[in-house]
Amino acid sequence: MTIAQRAPAYVRAISPYIPGKPISELAREMGLNEADIVKLASNENPLGMSPKAKAAMLAAADDIARYPDGNGFALKSALAKKFGVGIDTLVLGNGSNDVLELIARAFLDESGSGVFAQHAFAVYPLAIQSVGARLIEVPARNFGHDLAAMGDAVAADTRIVFVANPNNPTGTFLPGELIESFLKQVPKDVIVVLDEAYNEYLAPEQRYDAVAWLAQHPNLVITRTFSKIYGLAGLRIGYAIASPEVADLMNRMRAPFNANSLALAAAEAALADEEFLQRSFEVNRDGLVQIIAGLDKLGLQHIPSAGNFLTFKVGDGAGVNQRLLKQGVIVRPIGGYGMPEWLRVSIGTQAENARFLEALAKALG
Amino acid sequence: MTIAQRAPAYVRAISPYIPGKPISELAREMGLNEADIVKLASNENPLGMSPKAKAAMLAAADDIARYPDGNGFALKSALAKKFGVGIDTLVLGNGSNDVLELIARAFLDESGSGVFAQHAFAVYPLAIQSVGARLIEVPARNFGHDLAAMGDAVAADTRIVFVANPNNPTGTFLPGELIESFLKQVPKDVIVVLDEAYNEYLAPEQRYDAVAWLAQHPNLVITRTFSKIYGLAGLRIGYAIASPEVADLMNRMRAPFNANSLALAAAEAALADEEFLQRSFEVNRDGLVQIIAGLDKLGLQHIPSAGNFLTFKVGDGAGVNQRLLKQGVIVRPIGGYGMPEWLRVSIGTQAENARFLEALAKALG
Repeated sequence: MTIAQRAPAYVRAISPYIPGKPISELAREMGLNEADIVKLASNENPLGMSPKAKAAMLAAADDIARYPDGNGFALKSALAKKFGVGIDTLVLGNGSNDVLELIARAFLDESGSGVFAQHAFAVYPLAIQSVGARLIEVPARNFGHDLAAMGDAVAADTRIVFVANPNNPTGTFLPGELIESFLKQVPKDVIVVLDEAYNEYLAPEQRYDAVAWLAQHPNLVITRTFSKIYGLAGLRIGYAIASPEVADLMNRMRAPFNANSLALAAAEAALADEEFLQRSFEVNRDGLVQIIAGLDKLGLQHIPSAGNFLTFKVGDGAGVNQRLLKQGVIVRPIGGYGMPEWLRVSIGTQAENARFLEALAKALG
Repeated sequence: MTIAQRAPAYVRAISPYIPGKPISELAREMGLNEADIVKLASNENPLGMSPKAKAAMLAAADDIARYPDGNGFALKSALAKKFGVGIDTLVLGNGSNDVLELIARAFLDESGSGVFAQHAFAVYPLAIQSVGARLIEVPARNFGHDLAAMGDAVAADTRIVFVANPNNPTGTFLPGELIESFLKQVPKDVIVVLDEAYNEYLAPEQRYDAVAWLAQHPNLVITRTFSKIYGLAGLRIGYAIASPEVADLMNRMRAPFNANSLALAAAEAALADEEFLQRSFEVNRDGLVQIIAGLDKLGLQHIPSAGNFLTFKVGDGAGVNQRLLKQGVIVRPIGGYGMPEWLRVSIGTQAENARFLEALAKALG
């Protein structure tokens, strides 16, 4: 027996997450110039980061030999003020991926199960599997979460239900009332994770206030990230808002310095830059219209999206993806999400979107 | 039953890691000016970061809206070259804390146990406990690891043994031959983690090459960090070198973007800055002499240290610590390590060391 065979069976069964292809990797593989590559594969902000966040990050760059503030006092204070919550409701993470793992590690073990939707973010089943718990995948309805079926799927051993709104990679949206009704149905001793990574892209009429539900539902954990509209994916910073007792357990499982100094400084400044947020929102709204028009012209089916990406049907997803890569355009194949006939494209700048649509037309032949 | 009471008992039993007090926190608490505070509490490099690493970090700052390269290709290539190993032997972490947790999560569950030494780094028992495994603490010998006793303590259910060399917080050192003998005694299906966070501070005559042992001992995992001599604690970057099959399992448990973009860029450049490394080594060597002389003058017992810190006996550790804090000097009380009569001081610049010794004399008398 090799040493690796002594690892728990659930660890050996894990397939690693497949991220969007980095520009540098495609350049190496295809012998392309990095500057000629358009990456619309990871739902990143095409405007970059907020200039105010950048200034704050550079100001913090002199103190890198010091450990970060493990309590994240300044960023938590800013978040507490923004949401009108106590500091003891907040958990910072190395991206919201870290926060999602902390929830699984704090509430699940080999005796439990976790519920998630078909076509939902890949990190949910990975987090459940990584602690040896049982996976309960609930079939999607119109590519989105079927909350009624998810409620029915909660078993006696279920400790966590993951709900993404909007969902990635399908972009589907659940109105706030439906989520609040769901919270009322789920047993009080089951954690409901509401992943709002794309929340800031919601249209004004779609918005709802999940934080207000926490008082009635201490089993609710809301997760957010600075990797999407705030443009800080490279720095890795996300957070959870939860009841104090849940946040306390997550903080106990948290590595003491999981959020780095530059991420803490940049995120605090990014929160305050309303102008950048608004501009990013508008570029996305307009880009979504542009891409939808282009896909309609090509006669391609697409799923209505509330996020900064769009999922569309091409038939041979892998083949079209390869033909896009050869033209230096990176989108995301989602065969791993059970959707091999579809591709997901992130909304870029007007020029990037045009380049993508042009390459897609060629790839489809 | 509250929602928190539904978490596994081993999660509820965890006490969080207590980090060194940040300068900003002491300033808030004591109404002191941040510039007047000397922090010698977290074994940080008093010279800051390498100028070459800083330049590389700033050059990477334009691309923050992009996710990091989840495979860390450039940094892993540099590490592979430095150590003469394959890229498939490397695992990058959000600090070596992350890497230590990955080992526990990949190889331990509630049915196993982990062995560690009394007075060893607090993250070992935390990592074992966080997966619900049994803790086996082995009494120290002259404040250091008793390898013979640790070998004897390995039980049928033991999956991991943690060995720190030098050890933090006691600074004790084990010659390479003893570690290699230990590897020969430990069962082949038990992971031996050799934590070398302070390796670069070893005197030339203390050095040994653990990487060479990997071929014979695929159960060995060597961990290193950029938080100490490389001066990148605020960025969070560490790594493990292991056999490919062990590294593969750890990489499966790893969050896909656990190392941030700026850490990857800075670490790669820091590795190449031999001049900064040498200067940091010399400042530490000279500072250690300075602090030992000062403690001797005060008649205080101290433990010989192979790291960038020194642990010394004051009797009332908590009381002396409070009197140092009031003077704006932060050292580390180590009551949590079972050493309430001792304090640990990190080696600073000549001026910081002098300031510490002066404050200590006042605090004692």
